[in-house]
Amino acid sequence: MKQTRKKGISRANCEVLDALDPLRDLRARFELPDGAVYLDGNSLGALPRRTAERHGALVREEWGQSLIHSWNKHDWVTLPQRIGGKLARILGASEAEVIVTDSTSVNLFKLLTGALAMPDVKGRRIILSERGNFPSDLYIAEGVIAMGGGKYTLKLVEPGEVEEALNADVAVALITQVDYCSGRLHDMAQLNNCAKNAGTRIVWDLSHSAGAVPLELGRHGAELAVGCGYKYLNGGPGAPAFLYVAKSLQANFETPLSGWFGHQAPFAFEPTYVPAAGIERLLCGTPSVIALGAMECGIDTFEGVAMDAVRKKSLALSELFRALVDQECDEFGFTCITPPDPENRGSHLSFAHKHAYAIMQAIIDRGVIGDFRHPDLMRFGFAPLYVGFVDCWDAVTILREVMLDGAWRADNYHKLNRVT
Amino acid sequence: MKQTRKKGISRANCEVLDALDPLRDLRARFELPDGAVYLDGNSLGALPRRTAERHGALVREEWGQSLIHSWNKHDWVTLPQRIGGKLARILGASEAEVIVTDSTSVNLFKLLTGALAMPDVKGRRIILSERGNFPSDLYIAEGVIAMGGGKYTLKLVEPGEVEEALNADVAVALITQVDYCSGRLHDMAQLNNCAKNAGTRIVWDLSHSAGAVPLELGRHGAELAVGCGYKYLNGGPGAPAFLYVAKSLQANFETPLSGWFGHQAPFAFEPTYVPAAGIERLLCGTPSVIALGAMECGIDTFEGVAMDAVRKKSLALSELFRALVDQECDEFGFTCITPPDPENRGSHLSFAHKHAYAIMQAIIDRGVIGDFRHPDLMRFGFAPLYVGFVDCWDAVTILREVMLDGAWRADNYHKLNRVT
Repeated sequence: MKQTRKKGISRANCEVLDALDPLRDLRARFELPDGAVYLDGNSLGALPRRTAERHGALVREEWGQSLIHSWNKHDWVTLPQRIGGKLARILGASEAEVIVTDSTSVNLFKLLTGALAMPDVKGRRIILSERGNFPSDLYIAEGVIAMGGGKYTLKLVEPGEVEEALNADVAVALITQVDYCSGRLHDMAQLNNCAKNAGTRIVWDLSHSAGAVPLELGRHGAELAVGCGYKYLNGGPGAPAFLYVAKSLQANFETPLSGWFGHQAPFAFEPTYVPAAGIERLLCGTPSVIALGAMECGIDTFEGVAMDAVRKKSLALSELFRALVDQECDEFGFTCITPPDPENRGSHLSFAHKHAYAIMQAIIDRGVIGDFRHPDLMRFGFAPLYVGFVDCWDAVTILREVMLDGAWRADNYHKLNRVT
Repeated sequence: MKQTRKKGISRANCEVLDALDPLRDLRARFELPDGAVYLDGNSLGALPRRTAERHGALVREEWGQSLIHSWNKHDWVTLPQRIGGKLARILGASEAEVIVTDSTSVNLFKLLTGALAMPDVKGRRIILSERGNFPSDLYIAEGVIAMGGGKYTLKLVEPGEVEEALNADVAVALITQVDYCSGRLHDMAQLNNCAKNAGTRIVWDLSHSAGAVPLELGRHGAELAVGCGYKYLNGGPGAPAFLYVAKSLQANFETPLSGWFGHQAPFAFEPTYVPAAGIERLLCGTPSVIALGAMECGIDTFEGVAMDAVRKKSLALSELFRALVDQECDEFGFTCITPPDPENRGSHLSFAHKHAYAIMQAIIDRGVIGDFRHPDLMRFGFAPLYVGFVDCWDAVTILREVMLDGAWRADNYHKLNRVT
């Protein structure tokens, strides 16, 4: 049986899969370096072809020529809402529920503080999260707790224990839908339902979901969410993040980050803060127009693309990659820590290996770009808009080569000097 | 006497001033639209010539080709510190005291919350500021106060009363050095001294100072400051802002915005927040590399430029403009509300006029770009790196023309439909 699988998949098979891929033409929307297999779009999305051009126009024409008037003339002033409106489709939200601004961490701070200030969770003392949550999410929770002077406690549970832990003591839960290490995917509808029954609410971090996993924030009862712009959404390094507040919560949602762009009339220069009626109240300082310009091009790479097709391809890619690692690399001791059932994972796979760091550096030097996550994980992301099936074949083939020729044993691959 | 002044200054005189200007060659560092006189660099700085080129390279090469590796290869990871280090010279600070990230409002929130958490102001209940402070600064103070649940009170005084109000009840004072409306300049050394005597500290907003007024944050005893990147620093629309924390305060300075980039080892993915040793602890989420790339080009326009020369030219320009308005427009009812003594003002002038909005729109349509500030102010900024003396002549000449021919009376100039 194993023998059959070992010779089961060929490069030619993968070429056929690419030829049959209904999303194959989307790759042309991106600039990718020649000869590289880029499996790190879950960390930094690739450059959309349109970005360089559009961005040059933003800088040279809009800023350089129209200067200050571009706030009106080129509608800079509503960029966060406009881009949020486009993103809403990808998130399964309505246009007036999403805004793009600031960083994920700053937006998380807004939603956490805002959620804790909601009258219906008054008296509750627990902020619930997962032990393995992305560190910055936990750090922000720590910051909010320190600010509260002992009022709140952070309770961390394992992913499988979240449902049970969503009880009447929880003021707010901070849950990342797709785990940045394991790739495990939470059932959003199910957890929102539990939260509702417990009279609490979840702040979702969708950093590893948005643009890779079909989302139905509205239909699945999500009330609050943030997410990253520079991963599957292709907004560029450090792109502005997004945030989502369900319409039903907006009128009473207030955060201490009450900057002028969240005011109901920013340019009236009124002495007292009055929040805008809608999602705009979640803006704070002047948003970065330059960063938003790139972010818009990133979101536009999804134009006309059905998220169900994205998901289907994403899972086909990761299933293929898993099968190829089994087939080509089973003697090298890689352990896939990502849930084997496709329905329970996002769009990346993580493999544990004692020498993960060195092996990753060695395959990177042969053009296969994944990343390393402490302490022993090799992570491969499958951005369905530009990753193909032959890419998976080539990546695993090179992984096998590096393991066979021992290139990863070179001294320079063992120095932990790369930061991401 | 008045008669003499009226015919005292000619365009030819202004041409001579330009020819003698030691900073005249700096204009070549900028792209400016043909035929425009841009007197709004205090709102949005002009486009540096190098930005478009450098920015194209950042997008196409660094992001597009090197992708995720640019965090190391192109040192994206230390951009906030590196740009902060360059900016330090302009601020009169040491390199390890300045960082560029997030928006002014977000940075203000960090410094306000951090200052209030300092043990030496414990028990104090007043946040002091000025009644006419930039609204977003006051809004952020409101947010911080709301978060504290009645612990703090915002006390607003007139600019001339700040010194007296800096007493032992003040936990922190939030002072803008150059007023965005009047252009009034505070004596920083003097106020820092008063704050010190009262055992409190000032968070300075340097948005209208940095790049226009010589600053000596270290020598003048400043401990905390923020400021805008998109005005005189030419960082582009919505550019990342800066913040300054004096070395002496850094080790104990903590804010609730404890995102992963402020961690001592962001890429170790540790479960608990431990702030970085230095100014890096004031970072929060992933900074926008794209926005920082433009910001660096903005700061670089000051390369080799002495801030004393900038100040000298700034005041020469505003003195000339004032004199020209007196000479050419004294019958039209403009009242300069900016302090007449150059030592007491920043780098812009504001004129009150009943029809300020319409007049400003009319001169903008003839290429003289200043801005309107509610309710009746026309504001003209003099960015010494690219504004010349003939520009002042041309601007005032056009202002006179518009007043004489009554162009500003046109209906469309009276609709308050422009936001900045």
